[in-house]
Amino acid sequence: MIQRITLIGAGNLATSLGKAFQKAGLDIVQVYSRTRESASVLASKFGCSYTNKAHEIDLSADLVLLAIKDDAIPGLLEKFDCRRARIAHTAGSVPLELLEKYSDHCGVFYPVQTFSKSRDVNFSDIPVCLEANSSEMLGELKTVAVRISRDVREISSAERKVLHLAAVFACNFVNHFYYLGDKLLSEYGLPFNLLIPLIRETASKITEISPYDAQTGPAMRYDETILNKHLKMLEKRPELTKIYSFVTESIFLAHKKEHE
Amino acid sequence: MIQRITLIGAGNLATSLGKAFQKAGLDIVQVYSRTRESASVLASKFGCSYTNKAHEIDLSADLVLLAIKDDAIPGLLEKFDCRRARIAHTAGSVPLELLEKYSDHCGVFYPVQTFSKSRDVNFSDIPVCLEANSSEMLGELKTVAVRISRDVREISSAERKVLHLAAVFACNFVNHFYYLGDKLLSEYGLPFNLLIPLIRETASKITEISPYDAQTGPAMRYDETILNKHLKMLEKRPELTKIYSFVTESIFLAHKKEHE
Repeated sequence: MIQRITLIGAGNLATSLGKAFQKAGLDIVQVYSRTRESASVLASKFGCSYTNKAHEIDLSADLVLLAIKDDAIPGLLEKFDCRRARIAHTAGSVPLELLEKYSDHCGVFYPVQTFSKSRDVNFSDIPVCLEANSSEMLGELKTVAVRISRDVREISSAERKVLHLAAVFACNFVNHFYYLGDKLLSEYGLPFNLLIPLIRETASKITEISPYDAQTGPAMRYDETILNKHLKMLEKRPELTKIYSFVTESIFLAHKKEHE
Repeated sequence: MIQRITLIGAGNLATSLGKAFQKAGLDIVQVYSRTRESASVLASKFGCSYTNKAHEIDLSADLVLLAIKDDAIPGLLEKFDCRRARIAHTAGSVPLELLEKYSDHCGVFYPVQTFSKSRDVNFSDIPVCLEANSSEMLGELKTVAVRISRDVREISSAERKVLHLAAVFACNFVNHFYYLGDKLLSEYGLPFNLLIPLIRETASKITEISPYDAQTGPAMRYDETILNKHLKMLEKRPELTKIYSFVTESIFLAHKKEHE
């Protein structure tokens, strides 16, 4: 059973995971980060040691958990020998086989969530998607996952890749549209809070109705009068015009059958 | 003070508003709809009369409220004389001046929300944006709005138009991205509920952090490795490739300064 964890990374995800682990009674024994500064800031939260030197990474821990940028993973793993350590990454789009090159006990620990340092997240209902190179390693990762979440699933690298892409649409792109809405309003001196109940209801609706059935608005009805008014308002913004047109077209195509 | 309301329309908005009015103790005296069938279905919910003939619309009501497609408003108003009736529409993108051609007591009653027939909506925190051609009419509309919502605001036609456009981004487009996420997952046999906690947190975050500060993901970091993997997965879908590319570009441009 995994108890002692070395945390690689000091960003949003490392911070949120480390807090959740500690709250669940697990021990963070060390924080590694590229810079001493960021490693020390996060380590001070956990009361543990820290380093920015790969060869000093504490491999005596029960698990070395990587919460760093995808691109940074292979470069870091080249710098120390983790063949015998249990090692897992947390990335949506990195296949397990990358870790197999470096470790005999490797896996993936992917929480489907968005993390910001300034916001504490309740992990209990966040799906934690696991994958491992052996049933023993899978079992070990499960002991960690069930401590923080009630929703632990086994998902392959191919499935995780799709899940990550879907999450980009449903979270990153969605948040950017909140931002574009905010920007449009603020240019007219209107407060963003006008949109909050709408945003909340839109997110809440799809827990009861499928997103397909929940669709409303001028694009779906192909209400040309409104669409043209909106495009006119965006005419000096080629970037927004493109987005408006293509998303509208995509909505219309998805709902076209209803009109035939 | 408005007590008796004639409801024009029998769609999602008319249904939701009528229910909220009745719950708040207001009287729906008649439902008009283009087809007898839909008028009668909604009228039966309110226990009121109904018609599909414009000349039979009950103008003795304290308010005739239009909840129909934007394009249908002028055509309908040509068919009966509402010069002396109090009349208001509920549309985001229709200026008040359109109603001024037909009535001396006109206004706008625009709730910033998305409505589906199958889902009851709690109006209490929904912003209701009012506009009227006189302070008397504005006062009358307020008496109705405060019965169903705690958030009643006065907003001009120009402001409402921007608000409607912002709402299309923050609701209609957002919901379509939930749909695209759902579709991607289902093609791999993955359940949509994997995304629900993420969707909930994304919507919840921006009540505390600005959407700008809440942004996460590969586009913002311009993580080319991930972006290329995602584009590769979408390569047989030109429609999704365009959306992915342009939204990614827009996110990157918005956050570019952070990288410089």
